[in-house]
Amino acid sequence: MRWVRYEVGGNETFGIVEGEQIIDVTGNPFDGFERTATSRAMAETKLLAPVMPRTFYAAGLNYADHVIAAANKRGELPNLPKAADVGYRAVNSITGHDDPIIVPADATEQLQYEGEIVVVIGKEVKNLTEETVWDCILGYTIGNDVSERTWQRGDRTMWRGKNTDTFAPMGPWIETELDLEAAMTTVRVNGEEKITFKTTSMIFGIAEFLIRMSQYCTLYPRDVVWMGTEGVTDNMVDGDVCEIEITGIGVLRNELKWLGK
Amino acid sequence: MRWVRYEVGGNETFGIVEGEQIIDVTGNPFDGFERTATSRAMAETKLLAPVMPRTFYAAGLNYADHVIAAANKRGELPNLPKAADVGYRAVNSITGHDDPIIVPADATEQLQYEGEIVVVIGKEVKNLTEETVWDCILGYTIGNDVSERTWQRGDRTMWRGKNTDTFAPMGPWIETELDLEAAMTTVRVNGEEKITFKTTSMIFGIAEFLIRMSQYCTLYPRDVVWMGTEGVTDNMVDGDVCEIEITGIGVLRNELKWLGK
Repeated sequence: MRWVRYEVGGNETFGIVEGEQIIDVTGNPFDGFERTATSRAMAETKLLAPVMPRTFYAAGLNYADHVIAAANKRGELPNLPKAADVGYRAVNSITGHDDPIIVPADATEQLQYEGEIVVVIGKEVKNLTEETVWDCILGYTIGNDVSERTWQRGDRTMWRGKNTDTFAPMGPWIETELDLEAAMTTVRVNGEEKITFKTTSMIFGIAEFLIRMSQYCTLYPRDVVWMGTEGVTDNMVDGDVCEIEITGIGVLRNELKWLGK
Repeated sequence: MRWVRYEVGGNETFGIVEGEQIIDVTGNPFDGFERTATSRAMAETKLLAPVMPRTFYAAGLNYADHVIAAANKRGELPNLPKAADVGYRAVNSITGHDDPIIVPADATEQLQYEGEIVVVIGKEVKNLTEETVWDCILGYTIGNDVSERTWQRGDRTMWRGKNTDTFAPMGPWIETELDLEAAMTTVRVNGEEKITFKTTSMIFGIAEFLIRMSQYCTLYPRDVVWMGTEGVTDNMVDGDVCEIEITGIGVLRNELKWLGK
């Protein structure tokens, strides 16, 4: 099942994707829902980010080649994470599929994509185990963890380097039936493939993160966990169209609009 | 005006404190409200944290003596922040006034309080200036940034060191009419005063933080910004009662319940 979110009369509405149509529901995927007799054309519906999270978690460095490439750029030895220690991000940065990534005029040229799978939590849970962990996941969506590397390196925290408004496109929908082990993540800029990697080739997997997090932190419906990206990332410029595809989910597409250019 | 939050019939309700009574309102302080004819005794009402934030911001190191004391403990030279770079925290950690701080059995003895003033944002704003910054603030409350120092130092991020469930008590209410310059913050454990400091003796002030943040990030109603703490902090043990008082706001009180002790 694919869940999309959109506005009807100014109110948040969830719907189910069926072919080129969206079926309206009453309620939502987190608290319960019922299908209605109303449907609408996907092509004529402005999709919102498929969920606005309660807490926006991010795994950060979680693919080996990405950690090594980043360390090489800084002239340092790579320091692989030793445990699934999660980080936090800001809700203001989230935007939807087909929305512009708006880059402040004072950003440097080191403005880069990061293609990530996003876990969407569907239930309130604590103390997850290997047996229970998968049952709390509503589904998966795609994130582009847009990063201004100069700010990321130079500021004391990663606040504006990763949390500037629109720096976290997420979408287009939540897929509940993903074959995770088969999934491949591909990043394209203006149609040119930049990288393809196995989505689950993580240092610490989804189950490992959620189990460890939930020993200390209750997970809630609408929480999201961005799982990190792989490899070297490149700069983008004004007008670039960045697509993140995860097989079995779909394509998240966003165009860069650089203010003042 | 003092805003409290509580539950009526399982639903979030806001009310206004008048003496020992709470006046129920319809609506809320963020979207508009009207007083009702219903009131209830404060003493008989279980208060919730006065707001569940959209994004939970934290200034982190923002008082000079605290930065110097922490560096001394690590045997390092203090490294004062050079800009008002904000950090992020998790909503699961928030609990209310008079709720227990529940410490996991595997925490070390380095479990410490941090008394902080909390700014509650009331309006959606961007690009704040010296002239407009104060108008976006609904009011102020009190936070206890409970910190497990071993986890804080040893983990790659501060996730469980500061974001374990109940590690962020906040309350008892939002005060909208604070004389900020006159405010003093006092921390007491079992009635013994641990520290008193001028609430505004920050490295970067509230206006400086909000102006800088809002150049890149839209601030939204219900966002909170915890402004950091001062001085050396001490360990607490099972059964300790920690009070944070900020003059002009009130007292946030929480008892430690250490699991397995």
